Amino acid sequence: MDRDAFIAGLPELPAGCILSEEAELRPYECDGLSAYRRLPWLVLLPETVEQVRDILRYCHRQGVAVVARGAGTGLSGGALPLDNGVLLSLAKFNAILDIDVDNRLARVQPGVRNLAITEAVAEHGLYYAPDPSSQIACSIGGNVAENAGGVHCLKYGLTVHNIAELKLVTIDGELLSVGCRALDSPGYDLLALLTGSEGLLGVIVEVTVRLLPVPEQAQVVLAAFDAVETAGQAVAAVISQGILPAGLELMDRLAVRAAEDFVHAGYPLDADAILLCELDGERHEVEIQIERVSKLLQEAGAREVRRARDPAERARFWAGRKAAFPAVGRLSPDYYCMDGTIPRKHLGKVLATIANWSEEYGLPVANVFHAGDGNLHPLILYDANKPGELERTEEFGARILELCIAVGGTITGEHGVGMEKINQMCMQFNEAELQQFHAIKQAFDPDGLLNPGKAIPTLARCAEFGRMHVHGGELPFPELERF
Amino acid sequence: MDRDAFIAGLPELPAGCILSEEAELRPYECDGLSAYRRLPWLVLLPETVEQVRDILRYCHRQGVAVVARGAGTGLSGGALPLDNGVLLSLAKFNAILDIDVDNRLARVQPGVRNLAITEAVAEHGLYYAPDPSSQIACSIGGNVAENAGGVHCLKYGLTVHNIAELKLVTIDGELLSVGCRALDSPGYDLLALLTGSEGLLGVIVEVTVRLLPVPEQAQVVLAAFDAVETAGQAVAAVISQGILPAGLELMDRLAVRAAEDFVHAGYPLDADAILLCELDGERHEVEIQIERVSKLLQEAGAREVRRARDPAERARFWAGRKAAFPAVGRLSPDYYCMDGTIPRKHLGKVLATIANWSEEYGLPVANVFHAGDGNLHPLILYDANKPGELERTEEFGARILELCIAVGGTITGEHGVGMEKINQMCMQFNEAELQQFHAIKQAFDPDGLLNPGKAIPTLARCAEFGRMHVHGGELPFPELERF
Repeated sequence: MDRDAFIAGLPELPAGCILSEEAELRPYECDGLSAYRRLPWLVLLPETVEQVRDILRYCHRQGVAVVARGAGTGLSGGALPLDNGVLLSLAKFNAILDIDVDNRLARVQPGVRNLAITEAVAEHGLYYAPDPSSQIACSIGGNVAENAGGVHCLKYGLTVHNIAELKLVTIDGELLSVGCRALDSPGYDLLALLTGSEGLLGVIVEVTVRLLPVPEQAQVVLAAFDAVETAGQAVAAVISQGILPAGLELMDRLAVRAAEDFVHAGYPLDADAILLCELDGERHEVEIQIERVSKLLQEAGAREVRRARDPAERARFWAGRKAAFPAVGRLSPDYYCMDGTIPRKHLGKVLATIANWSEEYGLPVANVFHAGDGNLHPLILYDANKPGELERTEEFGARILELCIAVGGTITGEHGVGMEKINQMCMQFNEAELQQFHAIKQAFDPDGLLNPGKAIPTLARCAEFGRMHVHGGELPFPELERF
Repeated sequence: MDRDAFIAGLPELPAGCILSEEAELRPYECDGLSAYRRLPWLVLLPETVEQVRDILRYCHRQGVAVVARGAGTGLSGGALPLDNGVLLSLAKFNAILDIDVDNRLARVQPGVRNLAITEAVAEHGLYYAPDPSSQIACSIGGNVAENAGGVHCLKYGLTVHNIAELKLVTIDGELLSVGCRALDSPGYDLLALLTGSEGLLGVIVEVTVRLLPVPEQAQVVLAAFDAVETAGQAVAAVISQGILPAGLELMDRLAVRAAEDFVHAGYPLDADAILLCELDGERHEVEIQIERVSKLLQEAGAREVRRARDPAERARFWAGRKAAFPAVGRLSPDYYCMDGTIPRKHLGKVLATIANWSEEYGLPVANVFHAGDGNLHPLILYDANKPGELERTEEFGARILELCIAVGGTITGEHGVGMEKINQMCMQFNEAELQQFHAIKQAFDPDGLLNPGKAIPTLARCAEFGRMHVHGGELPFPELERF
């Protein structure tokens, strides 16, 4: 429809809440997956829940699609705008509404940054556990939309496990409360359904998060290994003993070197892989667990096991891990970050297969990932300026995701499907399952106006993509026969 | 429709899988909420997933409603049969299909008993954590349908947190897999949506549960208090220190006396309330935590804090708690068990209000409940043979649920809504929220054939019930003004 006419009919909004000039629209052309860019048709920045309701009601009546956007740090293109729809930014929803210390809850607006919650409740000895690498910048609304994870989700769960209530506005402008502050909520579990729904079901306008007491002690152990596979097995050894580390991260040689060059974390440069294992809790318990973990890692073949001598060394160990993505970014003009998850016992063989393919494609891969959860983040290094290299990278990435499915895993652990992995959804799910997803969408957004084209492929798209459903390794995958 | 004609048209089933004589139907007339009874029209006992698909497809074509039933131990009437529909028993689905020790998963059929899973994996040092009081008898399929809890869910979560995958058959006979064995699944979170959906969305035919390593040590502390309210505050004191007990249960004087008379647990009979606090984990950690908890309970006003001297005493302490419901049943011809949840900080005032109402109605109340989660189980003692006493009990129970909503809690923690609490759903949710629930139902079961009349009230029913929505204490509740 005509944009000027659409703007003229908009509900009343404060000055500066409607962006339509190209220069104003440009910052919104992509999210953290910058390989995909599209200039939005129109950006709206409402300030109140009532304005969000009015905007959605108006878009619904006009049949204009809407993409909601938090901080725009997502890595799967979930906030990629439309050239004929509204980009609805929640950036102005940045107030912390209420902190309930007794029940360890905080009620916040969706544009509040993840880390800002922890900062706001620190004086009460509390914190918000999920910690995506982008936690300085990413917003809690986006965390909910993507069901974000992070280093600590091994012990403390994903976003869905750390929220109590949501308020959302449906496409027809209804305001719904889902979830509750008590143990469990009656009715269907809409809280979990909404979490990770990537903006396809409604627009989140308020989040009540659960807070945890800051542990008395946190301590990290670094273990160095001569082979990535041995490090993978060590992960399984720790977890199978019933130890639940606060974080258990693996970095391979390329990632270790890049991080060390960048932040001087003190990592051993001659190791093929390192594990960082963090334990937290009551002081004496942490001591006991550190002893157990150190022994287990040694028995599992670590050539060196080192605990951080002081909080400064602990901070350096983590600084290397947290800076690993940008550090790898310095090795190559571009990199492509994957996010498959696999059952832990397959870590070794999947990493070995990726290494073989890396040689085959001539594209280096650095691995930095949440080993305890089996959540892989292979970073494929490429140069977008070399003809055909992006396409080769995409093909390589797609094969990795298909391998994850074949061993019983999934195509995404914490980054979402977005635009990026939509074709692989055709392999993850069969036709009846995809149809059920479309029926759920229909139950919230019958006209398909919320974030169209993302997360759930149409059956027509899957037919065109032409790949078969391989859920749970039911179909053979020739690369696996070697193992 | 005509039952004989319906039976004649059924897909082929093995001998003994079709029950239609009154004597055969009688055992299925109620579940654990025996105040509601109805003779089913027909009972079917399929043996294979294909038979379930054929039956549902046939019922769908014929427009005949279906109520799925596990072990029939539910406490909210969720498996109450229909006098014009099929009762589909999953009792023959009792095989453990696969135990995956490496990934700590077990794939089981829905009719497998909760405790049978733990027994089957005990040789690997593993167990299945959720432990409803009925765990000897209840089936895992029913646990999923109701999102069952238990003593240990404070630390280990509800059923939804302890399952990885489900297979379900939709009303039109499609077989869907939801969830995954890895960290997180792409697409909408149908695993959580199905869990606790009380048989309204599909029939569960397979469950993959997550297993945990048996803790090295478990130890229990018993604390006696002179007032229920002090015990309630002690619960908040323990939790606010960041201690996460494996179980934290409260019993009031009436429950303590009943349990002591019944199983001779060694409880102090002169206390107004006792707390049982269990800690589990690595041996030294448990020692440290027991010391901390004992100190905290003393500081919170316990007149006596006793730890179980040996495993036999620990078993006795728990035997009293586990037998509390039947023990209370010996005090009175009938009792009615409620299941509201409230934010922990309101425990004291809610228990005091219930005590006042107990006098007002002349109906004794025993309290035995999961204090750590704020999941109340007031047992109202009554005699169904006294005219009007059941009606007074129902009114009293409804007031308790409405009080739970008013303090920001919910009408059910772990027993489900079923038939029992369907009117209170009208107070828990507003019209837009209920409409969204109906839209979800529509997305799975457009003709409304699965477990009709349960869990989610129609808007017409709410209009007839005539009570206002009081979500999150937004409306005043005169009884609370005293506090």
